[in-house]
Amino acid sequence: MKYLEALFPQLPFPDRYTLKGPAEGLHNIRLVIQYKGTAYAGWQRQRSGILTIQEVLEGCTSKMIGEKIKINVSGRTDAGVHALVQVVNFHTNSTLSPDVFLKGLNSLLPKDIMVRYADEVSSDFHSRFNVKSKTYMYLILNDKISSPFFRDLSWQIYKKLNLGAMREAANCLPGTHDFASFMNTGTFVESTVREIYRLEIKNIPPLIIIEIEANGFLRHMARNIVGLLIEIGKERRFPDEVPSIIEGKNRALAAITAPAQGLFLKEIRY
Amino acid sequence: MKYLEALFPQLPFPDRYTLKGPAEGLHNIRLVIQYKGTAYAGWQRQRSGILTIQEVLEGCTSKMIGEKIKINVSGRTDAGVHALVQVVNFHTNSTLSPDVFLKGLNSLLPKDIMVRYADEVSSDFHSRFNVKSKTYMYLILNDKISSPFFRDLSWQIYKKLNLGAMREAANCLPGTHDFASFMNTGTFVESTVREIYRLEIKNIPPLIIIEIEANGFLRHMARNIVGLLIEIGKERRFPDEVPSIIEGKNRALAAITAPAQGLFLKEIRY
Repeated sequence: MKYLEALFPQLPFPDRYTLKGPAEGLHNIRLVIQYKGTAYAGWQRQRSGILTIQEVLEGCTSKMIGEKIKINVSGRTDAGVHALVQVVNFHTNSTLSPDVFLKGLNSLLPKDIMVRYADEVSSDFHSRFNVKSKTYMYLILNDKISSPFFRDLSWQIYKKLNLGAMREAANCLPGTHDFASFMNTGTFVESTVREIYRLEIKNIPPLIIIEIEANGFLRHMARNIVGLLIEIGKERRFPDEVPSIIEGKNRALAAITAPAQGLFLKEIRY
Repeated sequence: MKYLEALFPQLPFPDRYTLKGPAEGLHNIRLVIQYKGTAYAGWQRQRSGILTIQEVLEGCTSKMIGEKIKINVSGRTDAGVHALVQVVNFHTNSTLSPDVFLKGLNSLLPKDIMVRYADEVSSDFHSRFNVKSKTYMYLILNDKISSPFFRDLSWQIYKKLNLGAMREAANCLPGTHDFASFMNTGTFVESTVREIYRLEIKNIPPLIIIEIEANGFLRHMARNIVGLLIEIGKERRFPDEVPSIIEGKNRALAAITAPAQGLFLKEIRY
């Protein structure tokens, strides 16, 4: 959970999906990418004129192989959110090797999107459906003075935060709960129950790093949890309110959504 | 010499120049600023239409106090070079307190320039003439794959560098030498003799950090030293060549100038 290590993740891939021999039929290519989300309206392709990461990545890949492809992703990220590890896959007729995809795409992609790993995987691999857990990291700059190097990468909080209270509150969240109070509307989901495996708060002054690992995240769930923890750190809300906020299953009970620029998709387990 | 600590420097100010009582005559305001140099054509004001840090800072300050001012700097930085600590000062009729300058300027400045400290100093303080030593830090990303988070903040070297050879070469540089072989032409200087107090190379894979402290730096001297050390790290040049490169006092004997984006002005002693 060190800052620099997070920026240069040791990838857990290859895994059991990595193909050793020749594929039958279409090739299924997996990429592990990184991006700085500042300039993009999130992952998902939108109407033309709005720059998204999916559009740029699909565009560069199609340009490289002369074939229209559709890229699956582990999960969308919102506008301004970054990815230290994002896993995508696509099916193609192209027989180019994963290494050629890695090098070719890195020569075509803009400087804020980068492919860190590529392999060919079995046809049953899907970057979203096979996810076992995801980890988000949230960066808070707890200082009166901002930093030119962290303005796009953190949420600046002027007031000195009460870390003890934040950690006490954080202890209430792991486990299987209905996280409806932490979900923004706008996406249909069958269930608002998720399991948080881990929620850690690390203090590296003036940075505070919050890490959340779960089997899945509802819309804005990570940012809404951070929003509540910050309110508690500011002593406007209190740790003992957390159980009733969860119980209430009502978004209005929690707090504001933390801004996108502090959030990083950090790890994905398959 | 840790990366994060460098980005959030513990400032050594106030110092003996800091004024305790009321000033006589003009007020001499000192600012410690930080900037990400990517978007700027360096420190020094140029013809209109070219964005420089001096122009932006003087513009915001003049706007704030309604008085045309001229800002002195510890030393110019080149286009694309960053500053973790840069010290400037200016004389003004304004009676605004240093704290008001700090807050006011931070509300006016663009997000890649930030004031971290402000005080009022005695009239004999000059941010350039009083410098005792300056420290530059150079960031190398020694990896086959780039990073969206370090593209503007480092020099990417694909080939695994020989750190032992680089350190052996680095040991030849501290001390008082004529550094003519490490100076690019274009600025008149009375003497090309400088004293390097310290030259350290730290390995935090995939980053390599080179730190150089000296009583002064010739034009591009830090970047030319890094350029030579990289050639030696690539085993195209060798540590035992360094003494004769210094002796030769000829720019053609050394190596290329390392690119600006890896260089950070890190510390200034008065």
